[in-house]
Amino acid sequence: MSHEVFRREFIGLGCTAGALWLGARVGSAEGGQAPAASYPWPYRQLDVRKVQERAYRSYSKAGCMFGVFEAIAGSVADQLGRPYTEFPFELSAYGGGGVASWGTLCGTCNGAAMAIGLFHQGQNRTALINEVLAWYEAERLPAFTPDAPSKVPAGFAMPSSRADSVLCHVSISRWSGTSGYASFSPERLERCGRVVADVAGYAAGLLNKARGAYTPGRTISDTATGCLSCHAQGKQAPNEPEAVSRMSCTTCHEKAHHQEKKKQ
Amino acid sequence: MSHEVFRREFIGLGCTAGALWLGARVGSAEGGQAPAASYPWPYRQLDVRKVQERAYRSYSKAGCMFGVFEAIAGSVADQLGRPYTEFPFELSAYGGGGVASWGTLCGTCNGAAMAIGLFHQGQNRTALINEVLAWYEAERLPAFTPDAPSKVPAGFAMPSSRADSVLCHVSISRWSGTSGYASFSPERLERCGRVVADVAGYAAGLLNKARGAYTPGRTISDTATGCLSCHAQGKQAPNEPEAVSRMSCTTCHEKAHHQEKKKQ
Repeated sequence: MSHEVFRREFIGLGCTAGALWLGARVGSAEGGQAPAASYPWPYRQLDVRKVQERAYRSYSKAGCMFGVFEAIAGSVADQLGRPYTEFPFELSAYGGGGVASWGTLCGTCNGAAMAIGLFHQGQNRTALINEVLAWYEAERLPAFTPDAPSKVPAGFAMPSSRADSVLCHVSISRWSGTSGYASFSPERLERCGRVVADVAGYAAGLLNKARGAYTPGRTISDTATGCLSCHAQGKQAPNEPEAVSRMSCTTCHEKAHHQEKKKQ
Repeated sequence: MSHEVFRREFIGLGCTAGALWLGARVGSAEGGQAPAASYPWPYRQLDVRKVQERAYRSYSKAGCMFGVFEAIAGSVADQLGRPYTEFPFELSAYGGGGVASWGTLCGTCNGAAMAIGLFHQGQNRTALINEVLAWYEAERLPAFTPDAPSKVPAGFAMPSSRADSVLCHVSISRWSGTSGYASFSPERLERCGRVVADVAGYAAGLLNKARGAYTPGRTISDTATGCLSCHAQGKQAPNEPEAVSRMSCTTCHEKAHHQEKKKQ
């Protein structure tokens, strides 16, 4: 075999292997050419309390969606190194206040769902998002107490409330109604910072569990399950309108509707 | 030089050069080590009709939020090259059906807001999101007609409706009520695919305009503006509760409330 022939073969085969090897090496902190991050991202076990504290701090930097998303995705990225650490985490700041203060989906839920979507697809993603959102609707929040509160004095007695909704506007209005603090008060901002920590911690705990075989612990609320038995796809009642929703129905719709139907 | 020596030298030098060359060819024009993508991303002018068609196709791949986000961010990334093209666009698939079919924020609005958040921060981001969401509430949609419909026969007469809401559940229910097609029908899936194209195109048009000095053309709805004059931060009516919301209020709250207040 002449050098020329050998060289061509080597370029065709050996050098490709060399390029792959180089790519594998770089992934780490040493530098060189960074390979593309894989999708979905590989997950790494997280310390729930550390995620909560990080989320609470990140909330003060760029809001609620960023707080949850950055605490989870950023904590995993720190363990994975480049190029994962180069992800534009600030992107998620758009979801603050239910997206640019529109009061739609609570930024903590949006951020948790986005983080889940970084590590899971298909049925697992849906099951994990279901768990976070159904828990958020039903739980009295906030529960988290920071080591050093940022917007209220140390020892402040934080009221909690059940949102019965994953919508920012409803969640805040319920808390304000329960606590007596106005929706733009420092106490409410502090409340949302703690909810950020709660949701980030809860989602991180689920993601930790979901590394192996994963069995969902909670799906949607009993209320929605009941309503959707007549109103979802494949419903029992052919004349009832279908509804694309897993939200707790009776937060907006009157319960009377179903009671009347049941009497018939 | 023996084959063996040549081979070692080639592994040591030539192959590294080959690997770099491969990297250069794949990545940006200059090559070598791929730099981290900057945040916010630089923007590139987009062809609105091409974005619409791409969004319509992407919707069929991974849903409404992905459809809008991928069409905008992916089209810009194609012009920027690596590492922007390596962004995990599939991440945005979590928002389909108002996030995992929960019916919360319409995935087209979530995807447009996320795309806007990739290129803008602060007041510009808020102003652009305001424009998209207020337009979505008020516009009769869908308006887009694809070159080749994917879920209905060619020539299908697509009904349109005004959502009066940015929530998926409300938007779909309104359209189903207007059109008579069920919420899980192929016609409704087609409708959402066309709304994906509409929102992606509208947001791309705004982003094109917002490259230079940007003056918002539309803020929030007159309804919300009116209600928030008493219910927002810095409100005129000190005894009214504050509301964190820019959504059209009267879609969920009764108008009677304000009419009574005005009589007093």
